[in-house]
Amino acid sequence: MPAMPPWADGAPGGSSLALFTDLYELTMVQAYVADGTGDVPATFSLFVRTLPGARNFLLAAGLESVLRYLESLRFDSDAIAYLRTLGCFTQSFLDWLARFRFQGSVVAVPEGTPMFAGEPLLEITGGLAEAQLFETLLINEMHTQTMLASKAARVVLAAQGRRVVDFSARRVHGVDASVKGARAFAIAGISATSNLLAGKTHDLPVVGTMAHAYVQSFENEADAFRAFVRQYPETTLLVDTYDTLQGVRRVVDLARELGAQFKVQAIRLDSGDLATLSKQAREMLDAAGLHHVRIFASGGLDEHALAELLSRGAPIDAFGVGTRMGVSEDAPTLDVVYKLTEFAGRGRMKLSPGKNLLPGRKQIWRRETGGIYSGDVIGRADESLSGTPLLRLVMKDGRRLVPAPPLQQIASYAAAELAKLPPPVRGRATAAYPVTVSDSLTAHAESVQAALRS
Amino acid sequence: MPAMPPWADGAPGGSSLALFTDLYELTMVQAYVADGTGDVPATFSLFVRTLPGARNFLLAAGLESVLRYLESLRFDSDAIAYLRTLGCFTQSFLDWLARFRFQGSVVAVPEGTPMFAGEPLLEITGGLAEAQLFETLLINEMHTQTMLASKAARVVLAAQGRRVVDFSARRVHGVDASVKGARAFAIAGISATSNLLAGKTHDLPVVGTMAHAYVQSFENEADAFRAFVRQYPETTLLVDTYDTLQGVRRVVDLARELGAQFKVQAIRLDSGDLATLSKQAREMLDAAGLHHVRIFASGGLDEHALAELLSRGAPIDAFGVGTRMGVSEDAPTLDVVYKLTEFAGRGRMKLSPGKNLLPGRKQIWRRETGGIYSGDVIGRADESLSGTPLLRLVMKDGRRLVPAPPLQQIASYAAAELAKLPPPVRGRATAAYPVTVSDSLTAHAESVQAALRS
Repeated sequence: MPAMPPWADGAPGGSSLALFTDLYELTMVQAYVADGTGDVPATFSLFVRTLPGARNFLLAAGLESVLRYLESLRFDSDAIAYLRTLGCFTQSFLDWLARFRFQGSVVAVPEGTPMFAGEPLLEITGGLAEAQLFETLLINEMHTQTMLASKAARVVLAAQGRRVVDFSARRVHGVDASVKGARAFAIAGISATSNLLAGKTHDLPVVGTMAHAYVQSFENEADAFRAFVRQYPETTLLVDTYDTLQGVRRVVDLARELGAQFKVQAIRLDSGDLATLSKQAREMLDAAGLHHVRIFASGGLDEHALAELLSRGAPIDAFGVGTRMGVSEDAPTLDVVYKLTEFAGRGRMKLSPGKNLLPGRKQIWRRETGGIYSGDVIGRADESLSGTPLLRLVMKDGRRLVPAPPLQQIASYAAAELAKLPPPVRGRATAAYPVTVSDSLTAHAESVQAALRS
Repeated sequence: MPAMPPWADGAPGGSSLALFTDLYELTMVQAYVADGTGDVPATFSLFVRTLPGARNFLLAAGLESVLRYLESLRFDSDAIAYLRTLGCFTQSFLDWLARFRFQGSVVAVPEGTPMFAGEPLLEITGGLAEAQLFETLLINEMHTQTMLASKAARVVLAAQGRRVVDFSARRVHGVDASVKGARAFAIAGISATSNLLAGKTHDLPVVGTMAHAYVQSFENEADAFRAFVRQYPETTLLVDTYDTLQGVRRVVDLARELGAQFKVQAIRLDSGDLATLSKQAREMLDAAGLHHVRIFASGGLDEHALAELLSRGAPIDAFGVGTRMGVSEDAPTLDVVYKLTEFAGRGRMKLSPGKNLLPGRKQIWRRETGGIYSGDVIGRADESLSGTPLLRLVMKDGRRLVPAPPLQQIASYAAAELAKLPPPVRGRATAAYPVTVSDSLTAHAESVQAALRS
């Protein structure tokens, strides 16, 4: 049994990630395999049943990690040894798991696609056993990344073209969500991250200068600014450790003191009434001829705070957004499910109250009028309707068909797609986007329901 | 440069976790080291500034991973190579980082201690550089685990002694939070988890049986139950795929069919009006002589739902709680900060509006009257006040002083401590617990403030 590094708790490397699954996935799969239904063709659909009140759209993210995991996950000897200790798996099933390779197909919408309730983000078709096995991980990946990208898209839209950077690492739920979240934020248009591991992992621009502790470690703020600028002439100075406007005055003093050597690019406000303080700071900087020194704001920001600051005319050039984006505070969960919709060539549904879903393999057609999307139709995969089909075959026989697009390309695609949403849907107030179900899919759903009820 | 395994994005193993930090931590530390202040003694305090409205107390968790990381984190050649590409670090600082080992001290409250706003969960004392370096990771660990333990404690209290299991893996934010969260839940009294990786990592009991997809893969529910029971005679049968009471009838039919071979232990209700359905199901089971078949309920539960179900007399024996606990839905973030409170032997504070903190090294004394805690006093570390001191020295010169207690011991401690909180504080309605600041610490804070303002 390979030794786990001491920091591996909860931050798995290696194939232990195959064990990131609910026990019932494996007990079900063992039953399928034992009963001979493990290889019968099945389709599962991953979608969000209803949108939270604070979301008019979702921004799809997570597909890249899903495809990578489907290609690479293995139950290694360490995982098998653990499963054996549980006493509920036969040797024959453990052997099956040890040989397991995902051989199925995946259709999915590209990352960066705006999505709505009921629309499949991805569908997996394969043997019932292999399509069931990674449900927990698939939901977790798509949920975390889509939720965070969707929140960030709202923040980016509220910033009206101003730069927004990700300051959320300290309060995102865990390392995994933070590193994957930084990528999801980049898809949504966030410019950079403070998180070095995310920067390294996803090749993102990284940003950051100083915290209050730095200023506090000096006898006075002026000395702290002087020392930091000596080390980093083009830095951003944090001015609110003691008193924001006093801090701005010290920056102005430093500019006088240094003359041509003064290269500070920005000040950062991190507390107080940011609209008023940014106006006063701008006046003070301009009065000192420091027109080129930009104002950066942070501290408890989200899309609503950004919109309010900009509506009040705050002369803020860029925003650092942290916790509220990093935990998607107003909607920290999406109602994402992964449901069996077809088995042995026949549509499947549940009839539990309030949990109906659409049977079979599907396609989504997105329609456009005058450069703006006018609505989507969810239909059967083998229909041909007007509009642009969103679901594409991305993996076949367990192999991905196209390489991962560069992140910047995904972000550009997302920006272009978001720009084509109806303006109210892009806005912060609740607005619905028309999604309908095709006649053929409706008829199919009715026939499956009738068969179930009979 | 070692190859990263393909699933390593966001789930780091190896020393890459040292890079889980905000860039500014490293720019500040480089400045400290360059200016010769890196070794000057400093104390940072980690605490929650204010409690969310929906929390009367916190349950401390996360210390074990913090201590493990402090002992083990290294900037390996891969990390150093990445940092070099950023262009803002000198070779001399990169060499310093490559040699870096944490040599400081940690005082902390034991995991499983109920905590309140303003009380330090841990304090780190060391050279300014080493005490600053891991701020981001320390906050992330303590935030995620304390937030999740605190939510779970409410759920466990609401279950009034009934078993609660963790079903949250699919919607927790990422793998790291899920695996560490399962441990935090266990500290709070959650009995088991569905998450195999968490079970393996932390040696937790794992549970799980079947999902709707299993039932749907059969032509009818009765066949599904028959097949599953053949494989797992002592299973829990999920009865709500099509119609809950119809599902219960099928369980009763199966019991008649199997006679003495019927060993099903429970049914699971996952949708609908769980109070009414559980009563009807109990009556049907009892009428069939199946008194020993227990009722397990799941589906969108949290402490409020549990309290309501039990107040309506729902005969539910155990609960599966998922998303709402796993993302701490009503309080998905805590206002955790890590602040410099002493430097070069002198107390430090910020004066930013609304962000005041207490200077210096501290102790918390918890007082008890008639077996119930009556209030806490936060004082200076070198005071001696009445009550039980909560902060203990757990790491010195970079080495932990006592081994990690067994998880079950931490959970027992937490249960005993929670039982000693005043009943209103344990309840779901907002209730305050008295926390005061000692005269000596108040005087110290005033003198530090006066010095800053002068």
